[in-house]
Amino acid sequence: SGLVHVKNPHLESMEEDILYHLDLGTKTHNLPAMFGDIKFVCVGGSPKRMRAFAQFMHKELGLAGDGEDLADICAGTDRYAMYRAGPVLSISHGMGIPSISIMLHELIKLLHHAKCRDVTVIRIGTSGGLGIEAGSVVITDTAVDSSFKPRFEQVVLDDVVVRSTELDRDLVEELLACSKKIPDFPTLIGHTMCTSDFYEGQGRLDGALCSFSSEEKSEYLKRAYDAGVRNIEMESTAFAALCRLCGLKGESSRGRFRVL
Amino acid sequence: SGLVHVKNPHLESMEEDILYHLDLGTKTHNLPAMFGDIKFVCVGGSPKRMRAFAQFMHKELGLAGDGEDLADICAGTDRYAMYRAGPVLSISHGMGIPSISIMLHELIKLLHHAKCRDVTVIRIGTSGGLGIEAGSVVITDTAVDSSFKPRFEQVVLDDVVVRSTELDRDLVEELLACSKKIPDFPTLIGHTMCTSDFYEGQGRLDGALCSFSSEEKSEYLKRAYDAGVRNIEMESTAFAALCRLCGLKGESSRGRFRVL
Repeated sequence: SGLVHVKNPHLESMEEDILYHLDLGTKTHNLPAMFGDIKFVCVGGSPKRMRAFAQFMHKELGLAGDGEDLADICAGTDRYAMYRAGPVLSISHGMGIPSISIMLHELIKLLHHAKCRDVTVIRIGTSGGLGIEAGSVVITDTAVDSSFKPRFEQVVLDDVVVRSTELDRDLVEELLACSKKIPDFPTLIGHTMCTSDFYEGQGRLDGALCSFSSEEKSEYLKRAYDAGVRNIEMESTAFAALCRLCGLKGESSRGRFRVL
Repeated sequence: SGLVHVKNPHLESMEEDILYHLDLGTKTHNLPAMFGDIKFVCVGGSPKRMRAFAQFMHKELGLAGDGEDLADICAGTDRYAMYRAGPVLSISHGMGIPSISIMLHELIKLLHHAKCRDVTVIRIGTSGGLGIEAGSVVITDTAVDSSFKPRFEQVVLDDVVVRSTELDRDLVEELLACSKKIPDFPTLIGHTMCTSDFYEGQGRLDGALCSFSSEEKSEYLKRAYDAGVRNIEMESTAFAALCRLCGLKGESSRGRFRVL
């Protein structure tokens, strides 16, 4: 049917669903009218960047006006920012798995309440590239954890549930085909490693704490590269797991600066 | 000496230290002049709330002007917001352990470069109260993980390092003594549980995914209460571990709405 699957039997019996961190709700907002025609959701860490992206899409789609006055749909909260340009929603998610998870739970319920169909979610943004040309874009085929395993360990109450982090193969190929039409834009398919820490977790030597040597760092990053990792960031495993479970075509494509 | 300890032998030999996510650096800013007299750092999730807190402190401290025009010291980035009022710094950290960790690494280096002495860091904000009166403030004695253990598991490269999450006992007592001077403000000392997920991790029945029953949720929260947990949030174990390791007096005091 192309609809978004929420997997929560309790939701049916709730009189009202408040999407706290988006400042939206089923009683206060007409979600089908506001969002029913959304087909693409692009998400990224920074609110300012997601605003700029919505303005860019506004122009690309040839929508009326210059797009300079796009309103933040979540203006009532400073947890996340949300903009729309035609069928494209652009949302910020902050940094790290817990932050993107809260947003995705509420986004998935939003798309469900709005009865959206055939929605594609794409995560865009910067990341640390591994052994690739600076400025490259990595289209993620599989998100992996810091042990290079394609899994996301979710604590549910105090149990650990392991979830798959494979992304939509067709979408990966489609995005790669798109990239070929843009000259001078090195694009590749690879694994994306997701860590819970920016400094100690990604082998940085310039955090407040660092207990490893430059050689140990290089050895770890080399092992990551050999396992197929081409970039490192902090949200992809949770993103892949949640999109997959809820029937959303999801893709994470990013790239940047760290070269082995 | 009261100085902040960075535990990173590589920092000494770096010509410049850029605090990327705060948009500050040792070559671009005179950190001792800007921050050398800071004695308290208060941190919380929301940028707007931390601005309001800085304005409140500005008035409480009787500083010149009405404090309405406090500038965001990190205005060049939208990752975090930072304000100061006299010797008090007020900084937002977003949601979840990865987000607060990035900020704390850079804050600790900032205090180190600025040669600050005897700094107290207090985390303030809302949280889910457990079996306590709505509106109570919980002063955290120990942060615990979702298995109620006083530990923070940090992935360093691909090793797991376990860190202690006990908070400063004297500061806990001092804050409790302060609270007694404020009437009608129920305040208690207790453990604070830190989770990586807001919905499935905290037993909420209204996420996009929920695989447990209302009874299983209550049973888990009851076990948490019996283990000494009085509130639940998403940053305290990383906060406690990092403050402890770097010689900062740290405390996390918060409280709110969920009653068993």
